Amino acid sequence: MPHETVGRVRLVGAGPGPADLLTLRAARAIEGAQALLYDALVSDEVLALAPAACLKIRTGKRAGKASMAQSTINRLMLRLARRGLQVVRLKGGDPSVFGRVGEEIEFLASHGVESEVVPGVTAASAAAAQFGFPLTHRGEARRLLVATATLTEGRTAGGWMAGADPETTLALYMGRDQLAAVAAELTAKGRPPATPAIAVENAGHPHARAFPGTLGSLAGALEAGRPEGPVVVLVGDVTARAYVAPAAVQRLRDRRAS
Amino acid sequence: MPHETVGRVRLVGAGPGPADLLTLRAARAIEGAQALLYDALVSDEVLALAPAACLKIRTGKRAGKASMAQSTINRLMLRLARRGLQVVRLKGGDPSVFGRVGEEIEFLASHGVESEVVPGVTAASAAAAQFGFPLTHRGEARRLLVATATLTEGRTAGGWMAGADPETTLALYMGRDQLAAVAAELTAKGRPPATPAIAVENAGHPHARAFPGTLGSLAGALEAGRPEGPVVVLVGDVTARAYVAPAAVQRLRDRRAS
Repeated sequence: MPHETVGRVRLVGAGPGPADLLTLRAARAIEGAQALLYDALVSDEVLALAPAACLKIRTGKRAGKASMAQSTINRLMLRLARRGLQVVRLKGGDPSVFGRVGEEIEFLASHGVESEVVPGVTAASAAAAQFGFPLTHRGEARRLLVATATLTEGRTAGGWMAGADPETTLALYMGRDQLAAVAAELTAKGRPPATPAIAVENAGHPHARAFPGTLGSLAGALEAGRPEGPVVVLVGDVTARAYVAPAAVQRLRDRRAS
Repeated sequence: MPHETVGRVRLVGAGPGPADLLTLRAARAIEGAQALLYDALVSDEVLALAPAACLKIRTGKRAGKASMAQSTINRLMLRLARRGLQVVRLKGGDPSVFGRVGEEIEFLASHGVESEVVPGVTAASAAAAQFGFPLTHRGEARRLLVATATLTEGRTAGGWMAGADPETTLALYMGRDQLAAVAAELTAKGRPPATPAIAVENAGHPHARAFPGTLGSLAGALEAGRPEGPVVVLVGDVTARAYVAPAAVQRLRDRRAS
């Protein structure tokens, strides 16, 4: 039987990284937090908005350390909320997209703790904005499919069919390591290997790197480029519209920034 | 031949409506704008951030007035940018998703005007956050398809197949009037009519209204509810997790707010 409602947790989207790509509501929540539980994808710049006295708990893996189990995160949120603290659970991007927010809302509700979700800018939007290409475009892309490499594992062919569809822009999250396999399967399902595609490392950050290519070539380009940050892969004709500065310009920009 | 680069336009996502769901970058761009061209979906609250001296031009239809032609919008942006003004082109949600941002970038670039896109929170994220359901969820929804009613018009079956797929959450933008037709076609393609679905009017606004139902029932519920604001429809098992306050509570909240 659920307890009486005691405490509240805000599940907040940290957006793609730069602090100025937070929503104002998210920034205010972080600035007022007394306890902050944050995932690996949350940037230092965003964390720096929290008050000095705020208890900050890293839940995601970084530098080889293991992630905290979801059940541990849940119990921590519960304990902190019941102490009456302003608890913020901070997730990269938009919490509703591959953020496990449903599991956390359900757990908290079953223990009488209210939750509020603050939406954020998702990585596909950040990548498209930064490199100046649209995710949908008249005559080129009628829809956007946001998926992970589990596109290959579904019970049905629906995901595959959409990923292979020429009128769909595919945004593949957390797909760097499986990209070659996903590309091979999409190609087998009929998406031409010459379909333009782009991988964006650290989408939204000033130091983001874009790897333009095709569905057939991108996995090789990524392997050669050795990105270390999170990567979002976009597949579809619209990605040919990306403006990627020549490598020399990018190096110059990096030197100026450092 | 393109002119030399003169002027710059920022294509800015206004998010779902409330000013505090703008990104900080978007809010600053609006606060510094000298000329603002805005779509019908941009809220008054967001427009109020612009300086009093800013030239504000409505490009979208409201209250029965016709929308400005895309070519007129393009020429206006160009003229204002060439005068050296800080030009902001403001679009509801995220500009890269059904925002025609590709056409505007291309036009501006072909006339030597630079553009910069500022991403925003898209309506599906706002609706999910506000009513506390996820867009993806382990074992329920592996992916998200963002589409319009042109799902019915594609050259291929890919869109349909994904829309009908039980493991895909479908977000249907601008689909209120075609919902019955879309639902009938999805059902014919195999998505059960009992699939949970929800329509959200004015997603993100304090006065948003949610119409929960099923793929089979939702068009009827919408017709009875007569929403007047923009509507996003979400279809998929995850929508059964939405928390919609009973009508009596909603009326009470409205009375308090008014």
